[in-house]
Amino acid sequence: MSKKTLQPTDLTRLKRTHERGAFDLETIHEILDASPLCHIGYQIEDQPAVTPTLQWRIGNRVYWHGSSASRAMRRSTETKTCLTVTLLDGYVLARSGFSHSVNFRSVMVFGTPVLVTDPVEKEESLRAMVDHMIPGRWPSLRPVTPKELKATAVLWMPIDEASAKIRSGGPLDEEDYDWPVWAGTIPMRQVFDQPITDENSTHDLPTPDYVFDLVKSSQEGNKR
Amino acid sequence: MSKKTLQPTDLTRLKRTHERGAFDLETIHEILDASPLCHIGYQIEDQPAVTPTLQWRIGNRVYWHGSSASRAMRRSTETKTCLTVTLLDGYVLARSGFSHSVNFRSVMVFGTPVLVTDPVEKEESLRAMVDHMIPGRWPSLRPVTPKELKATAVLWMPIDEASAKIRSGGPLDEEDYDWPVWAGTIPMRQVFDQPITDENSTHDLPTPDYVFDLVKSSQEGNKR
Repeated sequence: MSKKTLQPTDLTRLKRTHERGAFDLETIHEILDASPLCHIGYQIEDQPAVTPTLQWRIGNRVYWHGSSASRAMRRSTETKTCLTVTLLDGYVLARSGFSHSVNFRSVMVFGTPVLVTDPVEKEESLRAMVDHMIPGRWPSLRPVTPKELKATAVLWMPIDEASAKIRSGGPLDEEDYDWPVWAGTIPMRQVFDQPITDENSTHDLPTPDYVFDLVKSSQEGNKR
Repeated sequence: MSKKTLQPTDLTRLKRTHERGAFDLETIHEILDASPLCHIGYQIEDQPAVTPTLQWRIGNRVYWHGSSASRAMRRSTETKTCLTVTLLDGYVLARSGFSHSVNFRSVMVFGTPVLVTDPVEKEESLRAMVDHMIPGRWPSLRPVTPKELKATAVLWMPIDEASAKIRSGGPLDEEDYDWPVWAGTIPMRQVFDQPITDENSTHDLPTPDYVFDLVKSSQEGNKR
């Protein structure tokens, strides 16, 4: 468990808002680990672009990957980039429109992405991705080929200039608690439904336990 | 229903990938309407930043809001911006690590945001937000005050330079269908859990039907 806390910078310091900003790596890592989806910000000439992709973490580095031919990957290598992960945790229904809010957890990581060039390191980082998203699956897969590795670009940034932002709990209505409307929160979460077997399989194989485990833990857990 | 199809531009044309790019407004609008969460990309000097916020649509405009004092709002007014909405629809488990994928729907909108300055237009746009997220709630709320309106900045962009990207269906394994590992998809969706009443209410009011309707439709619908 990481007890380290990052130093806020001009980029990461919260200027306003009563949401909670957090700079401890434990919180930042937990939020990154809770959702593979991230959004990467980079520039196409003077035009900002925001691309969704999957991220995963190894120690204090955040990784993502894409096609070696991808514009988003080329544009964000060795140039300043921002990676943001957000989980929507619920709607907050207040007594005034102004005080309505959402509960969420988000992390922004600022940095200059580094391209993984060593093929062994690249394959290990891709394995870490599969191990994180679908624990138990990697050993049963058809091994990676050199051609596939070459076609895949992997980038990472250190989690050094980063911050978390969290809102949780009910509405903050200040002077409106007496207004006669129901108020409260509607919690929200991402769940898996039952797996669908690919029709193109030539073997009749049972759905692995690790798939059912993923579905079950998403349906039971992560409530807030 | 919008039958219009946007012209792909250098920013929005898909360069590679076998995912499906879509430029018809009906598809773009549907994806924007399916998730309030978006990520806005803007610049802080030479540093890209990606901020999560809520978006909503009125006709062929996409709106978002924030504090009038917010850096993200100031930085993205009248300067090139990108707004991206992404829904993760499932994990795609292939027979090789390389062919693993996710099903998703995303929209990128490029443009130069316009600040809503007219207070009537601003209030109407905020009402449209609440009406979209929690249909039925607005009329029962404590009315908006001029001070609150002033503290809220609302931005919009036309949905003119935009594209959708969609991946759906099972794994594409080309020559690996015979590899002896289970393959398929694990569908994923965002659901609401049961509402939690705010303890600070001075009245004992029942949870409105429109709240239960939201929860119910999220738990039943949106499966793919």
